[in-house]
Amino acid sequence: MGENTENTVVLGHGSGGIMMRRMIDELFFAAYGNDVLASGDDAAILPAPAEGQKLAFSTDSFVITPLFFPGGDIGRLAVCGTVNDVSTSGASPFAISCGFILEEGFSLESLRRICASMAQTAREAGVRIVTGDTKVVERGHADGVFINTAGIGAIDKGMQLSGANCRMGDAVLVSGTIGDHGIAIMSARNNLGFEAKVESDAAPLNHLVAHVLEVAPQTRCFRDPTRGGLASTLNEFAGQSGVDILIKEDAVPVRPPVEGACEMLGLDVFQVANEGKMVCVVAADEAEAALRAMQSEPYGKDAAIIGEVVAAKDPSFPKVYVQNGFGGRRILDMLVSEQLPRIC
Amino acid sequence: MGENTENTVVLGHGSGGIMMRRMIDELFFAAYGNDVLASGDDAAILPAPAEGQKLAFSTDSFVITPLFFPGGDIGRLAVCGTVNDVSTSGASPFAISCGFILEEGFSLESLRRICASMAQTAREAGVRIVTGDTKVVERGHADGVFINTAGIGAIDKGMQLSGANCRMGDAVLVSGTIGDHGIAIMSARNNLGFEAKVESDAAPLNHLVAHVLEVAPQTRCFRDPTRGGLASTLNEFAGQSGVDILIKEDAVPVRPPVEGACEMLGLDVFQVANEGKMVCVVAADEAEAALRAMQSEPYGKDAAIIGEVVAAKDPSFPKVYVQNGFGGRRILDMLVSEQLPRIC
Repeated sequence: MGENTENTVVLGHGSGGIMMRRMIDELFFAAYGNDVLASGDDAAILPAPAEGQKLAFSTDSFVITPLFFPGGDIGRLAVCGTVNDVSTSGASPFAISCGFILEEGFSLESLRRICASMAQTAREAGVRIVTGDTKVVERGHADGVFINTAGIGAIDKGMQLSGANCRMGDAVLVSGTIGDHGIAIMSARNNLGFEAKVESDAAPLNHLVAHVLEVAPQTRCFRDPTRGGLASTLNEFAGQSGVDILIKEDAVPVRPPVEGACEMLGLDVFQVANEGKMVCVVAADEAEAALRAMQSEPYGKDAAIIGEVVAAKDPSFPKVYVQNGFGGRRILDMLVSEQLPRIC
Repeated sequence: MGENTENTVVLGHGSGGIMMRRMIDELFFAAYGNDVLASGDDAAILPAPAEGQKLAFSTDSFVITPLFFPGGDIGRLAVCGTVNDVSTSGASPFAISCGFILEEGFSLESLRRICASMAQTAREAGVRIVTGDTKVVERGHADGVFINTAGIGAIDKGMQLSGANCRMGDAVLVSGTIGDHGIAIMSARNNLGFEAKVESDAAPLNHLVAHVLEVAPQTRCFRDPTRGGLASTLNEFAGQSGVDILIKEDAVPVRPPVEGACEMLGLDVFQVANEGKMVCVVAADEAEAALRAMQSEPYGKDAAIIGEVVAAKDPSFPKVYVQNGFGGRRILDMLVSEQLPRIC
């Protein structure tokens, strides 16, 4: 009713009819079309992994607000999130799917920007967006746009990375500064004034992971510390492996404005979300090689060895300890409830 | 604030912390856990397809309202939709992902029912739910629950099904009565009184597709006529192949209450959504075999040969014609805009 259907999403865009077809052609295909996506059939057909390989498969939905933020947007995040989740297994991601849930009235210009960002990020990561779906819900029943991506990767049969592999003496690395994404979003949302100084770290890390695996074949596991931050990832590793983990606080790279924001907001930076970082546990004698590999990658310049795996004091309650510069230790807990809704 | 967190979704369930972990264990894992999902790592690791096979990959999001309806629920739909999309390529689906977007305040009991339904449907189809994700948005920013599934299948290298394969003389089949899903949802939503008589047809059709392919190796294509109904599917085939399609109206199976509802509501049953039907184009000399295969399957008892592929009168505008019992012909158009939002 008087709605400008040229500029905004309308319910007809989700109809399965002509309007939807046109949106697919003019918007999605124009942004990230390729020969697989182009076929017009319901399923994308892809080459299987090479002999001796297995598949890795992961999915993530994105409900972040705001949709555009310093350092990225929901489209970049949606590609990076799934590329990184697939990569944590040691797999090379090669194809992703994309499901949009659009709210009636959402700006088509914003959607176009988001698609362009997905296309650019997919190119950077070397993956193709090969299949998709679009649904539209009435105004007030969603919030602009939600995106789901799922991703497939190929992985060598011998590769057995898992959070359950950590052993006493292993080194713990992080690929760069922590807390950037969470603070960038909080700041953008609440006009805290940190925007100018803190950008989201949203980045595809598949090349960084592959490089580490080349030089450190005894790598135990990777995980990207997104929601729940480093605290969740390290506690998950400790729990899966039945070990304690000891982190040296001074070794963990944190940008000064992120540190300042955390102090002001009363947050533990270890619990703040990241979207372009990997935590990695490696055999001690490969730690230096892994570190150099990370540091030679565009998204790993600030990588650091931040701690080690130690025997569990109480094997039924594996814990993560943070030791400060004076030798004092505190237990690093997982976030219990919610720190910041819709951070990704 | 005073919210009963025992019974409803709260923002903390999307935090990446302890509450989310507990929900994954007690709800998702309890419903459809398996050794791959259990590993606790970010990506599921799966065997690759056998040598000589390729991958099929598809995704679908589900925003249907109401969530529970005669004949199914959003969970059954979410599994069937992706299983069927993967199957249309001739692939055997084996793994699916599941991404939930939950609204704060959504009933955990409803979520449990939905997960149980997904588990039951996945078992029926013979696929495993191997990886997932959960996001929570604030009250009023979504509508209960949205689900995305993506699915992977294995497909023989020689299999080349495509809507672009239709040739003059081919037979067009449908696996059963059309319009059931759309009318069931419209009726449930508006208390039209048809609920007692019309149930959604939501069903996994991978076994039916496999059976047809066994007996009709020259099958050209499958497609499930969901949003946009038979009209969209047939027009897509005609457009992809550059042919006309001629349907005999009397041959198309429609339940009497669905026919009655369409008359009352002024709908063309050919444009009404289905969630458990396949349209199939086969070589004429394999049509009877394909039909018998469908009819021997639990979800194909009402299958019928409904028409044929004919030469395009105007090759630049391929069309679908419906011929009634008196020989009169009308052009069957695709839905232009929206008939019924959130039908799936």
